[in-house]
Amino acid sequence: MNDKVNLAAKLATFDEYFNPKIVGELNDYKLELVKAKGEFVWHSHPDTDDCFLVLAGRLTIQLADRDIELEPGELFVVPRGLQHCPKAHGEAHVLLIEPIGTPNTGDAGGNLTADQERI
Amino acid sequence: MNDKVNLAAKLATFDEYFNPKIVGELNDYKLELVKAKGEFVWHSHPDTDDCFLVLAGRLTIQLADRDIELEPGELFVVPRGLQHCPKAHGEAHVLLIEPIGTPNTGDAGGNLTADQERI
Repeated sequence: MNDKVNLAAKLATFDEYFNPKIVGELNDYKLELVKAKGEFVWHSHPDTDDCFLVLAGRLTIQLADRDIELEPGELFVVPRGLQHCPKAHGEAHVLLIEPIGTPNTGDAGGNLTADQERI
Repeated sequence: MNDKVNLAAKLATFDEYFNPKIVGELNDYKLELVKAKGEFVWHSHPDTDDCFLVLAGRLTIQLADRDIELEPGELFVVPRGLQHCPKAHGEAHVLLIEPIGTPNTGDAGGNLTADQERI
């Protein structure tokens, strides 16, 4: 059976930015941790919403018409189909929740697409 | 469109224990905040896993054969169908994630069943 997940301990096991690591599953959803620094890539997920919960640092989720500024303890759900681009000046740690199989780069693809590693 | 959710600000708006409040939606899942103190009720969710992320305080998720002790920044996914009973000595604040419509008391029912209020 699954054991509990200590998010800080899992975050200490990797250094890459914008390369989400799966730390748990909830039915057909994945619980992922990601470290962000700099700007990711503009993309959308045509088939799913996308939930960001900031654990440390500050994360900006750029939308076409505004920026969502997230601090620790704040979450934002990007609606399905909406173009967005995460950005962090310093390092930010984020819990992501989305359906298993959802690519981090959504419809954009490219070499920033992560391999969805389970840690 | 949805705005961001500050979890601490939402937690400050209610006092009841074991009465989860919906603060967001992710596709057909609800994001809920709950304050726990004392012991809840033994129950299971026959059709879904159940994700607990502790934000403040300490929460024990009692299982038939062991206790899962959660501190802030720790999460546990109770597998579908597994009997469990949350318990907190002091006050604990928890983010719950489960499908919309999932009753907090699962298959147990009774007067602790919450009305799934959106705040």
